[in-house]
Amino acid sequence: MIPSVAVATSGERFRVVYRLAGTDDEARRLAREVAVEQTLEIPEELIPAGDVAEKVVGRIESVSDGLATISYPVETAGHELTQLLNVVFGNSSMKAGVRVERVDLPGSLLSTFRGPRFGREGLRKLVGAGQRPLFCSAIKPLGLPVAELARQAYELGLGGVDVVKDDHGLADQPWAPFEARVAAGVEATRRAGRESGRTVLYAPNVTAPGARLLDRARRARALGAGALLVAPGLVGFGAVQELADDDSIALPLLSHPAFLGSFVVRPDAGIAHGALFGQIVRLAGADATIYANHGGRFPVTPDDCRAIAGEAAAPMGHLAPIFPTPGGGMTLDRIAEMRAMYGSDVMYLVGGGLHRPGASLVENCRKLVQLALS
Amino acid sequence: MIPSVAVATSGERFRVVYRLAGTDDEARRLAREVAVEQTLEIPEELIPAGDVAEKVVGRIESVSDGLATISYPVETAGHELTQLLNVVFGNSSMKAGVRVERVDLPGSLLSTFRGPRFGREGLRKLVGAGQRPLFCSAIKPLGLPVAELARQAYELGLGGVDVVKDDHGLADQPWAPFEARVAAGVEATRRAGRESGRTVLYAPNVTAPGARLLDRARRARALGAGALLVAPGLVGFGAVQELADDDSIALPLLSHPAFLGSFVVRPDAGIAHGALFGQIVRLAGADATIYANHGGRFPVTPDDCRAIAGEAAAPMGHLAPIFPTPGGGMTLDRIAEMRAMYGSDVMYLVGGGLHRPGASLVENCRKLVQLALS
Repeated sequence: MIPSVAVATSGERFRVVYRLAGTDDEARRLAREVAVEQTLEIPEELIPAGDVAEKVVGRIESVSDGLATISYPVETAGHELTQLLNVVFGNSSMKAGVRVERVDLPGSLLSTFRGPRFGREGLRKLVGAGQRPLFCSAIKPLGLPVAELARQAYELGLGGVDVVKDDHGLADQPWAPFEARVAAGVEATRRAGRESGRTVLYAPNVTAPGARLLDRARRARALGAGALLVAPGLVGFGAVQELADDDSIALPLLSHPAFLGSFVVRPDAGIAHGALFGQIVRLAGADATIYANHGGRFPVTPDDCRAIAGEAAAPMGHLAPIFPTPGGGMTLDRIAEMRAMYGSDVMYLVGGGLHRPGASLVENCRKLVQLALS
Repeated sequence: MIPSVAVATSGERFRVVYRLAGTDDEARRLAREVAVEQTLEIPEELIPAGDVAEKVVGRIESVSDGLATISYPVETAGHELTQLLNVVFGNSSMKAGVRVERVDLPGSLLSTFRGPRFGREGLRKLVGAGQRPLFCSAIKPLGLPVAELARQAYELGLGGVDVVKDDHGLADQPWAPFEARVAAGVEATRRAGRESGRTVLYAPNVTAPGARLLDRARRARALGAGALLVAPGLVGFGAVQELADDDSIALPLLSHPAFLGSFVVRPDAGIAHGALFGQIVRLAGADATIYANHGGRFPVTPDDCRAIAGEAAAPMGHLAPIFPTPGGGMTLDRIAEMRAMYGSDVMYLVGGGLHRPGASLVENCRKLVQLALS
């Protein structure tokens, strides 16, 4: 028998909106299953009366049209991102027909997160961009030597790209080892900046296991990197938060969606695009959130993209808005349409699309900038 | 233009088997998309002739019956678990109709992983279990004070449970803070061990953001914990590997599936149960892999479970076999069937099922042991 005990709580709760499959009755039953699974994780008939049943367990605030809002005491999250995500979706990620649509965190919980160090406006200031959109591209592919990647970094910067990032597949392979690549990338983007009278940031990929992530980030900072690329799907959102919060690093973070696709790819499971790439990435402290734009190589809808861009800037306590950074097969002929959809508060990510033959990388970058700003 | 360059490789490749949706022709096209996406990530027409096209890009070894085997040069993985997973499934996780069925790593790549420190036989030795199955249970639920959780730990240990773990929702909440809970859990399980003439391990949950994971693990070790619980979905597989490899901690690791469900819940996306909970968890160095058994609260098939148990012990270079640890709503009346399915090489995880009224926790544990061993 699990005893009835007194449980002290502040009374403050955070809310999660879940999309649940089935009829209204089925959704109601499933909502209760989720509410118990995410907190007590014991059979319904073992829940002791009193505070545990009344305060600790998830509370169903509403169920309608397949959407259930469940609230949890802020104490369940233990002021830690890993445990917050565990309460939001830990075991229920294994249930069929449950998708996290959005989270709604009260100020007392948000205040325990530092959030993006630079945010959208901080990034704009770093590159002196006023209120215009930013431009991002990647040096690639895997297999090229450092000198060739550095040449790309230089030409991209010269052509008008603000943030030159590593392809997310560049880690510490023998063909372009981390240390040599970062040194050359920094030199190349600085040179491009000097020659074009602009600030060009180089964002090496620091995604790595465990403490190696911070080691690599510190090394990148020491070598002069202007930003960092990290994939929370591979290192965990808690590690991204640690990276963002580290005052000895203090560089803008670009979040990459690698290994997170299983959360979003099926509309009846996982976590909605806006919640994952908007809210959670921002909560972890990234300053820009890279995601697959609609109409590219991945099954993403315009509404998914609007949701991400919306959550990237929606009110979220003291957390700064961040840059939606749509990519994934974007080409120059998509810019007009992206411009209409995203307005100015966007960082365009064009990769392979700039390498099209018929013009140089520099010329293609200039076309990109012209198409987006004219 | 991306230039043609010489790329040095050892010639050794690792293989990934993907399940691909569609007709044979569609699967073949999708396989090529995956092979390019996971390596070069540039449009097909930009791939330079020569070594990049011949050596670096994923090579389709076979496509049949919806299964494609693609091989990658071992160098792409850069000897790091994060980057290995990135090559296996980074961006392709965002594609529709792609599921990782299994990975096949050559000895040269496996040799860069230490793997499970204890493994199945090491865990058995620690608790003096001979060749019998092991028993695991959890102290719960969230909301109870330390004294009550410790009482459960004592009774579970006294009744015959070998590994008493924290419920995976216990982190560092005010109701049962980490430090006090671990100290009391250690004392309770040691007392149970002394009184029953056995070794009872207590496995606190050390899942936490960034470096706090290792901090908590070291503190747990100092306080006398006998094992650790960690959720790779929340901390990242690379962090689990770091935890497993740390010689100053050197405790058996139980891997918990929280927040990993989106990978497995849809059979046409994500990563197959056997690959995720068998191969990848083992590669990260966990000694026991907790997963939802079939017929419980989660949509899992007997074949999924057989695949996990199979991969937990399948030949994998020097990596020790680990304990399949099925749980998730298991009750005493399921033990006979689980015994028939798993044989002796299993760690039974029964949680709420031991708290059924009509008998004490100690009595229910004894029933569990009797049902499994008699």
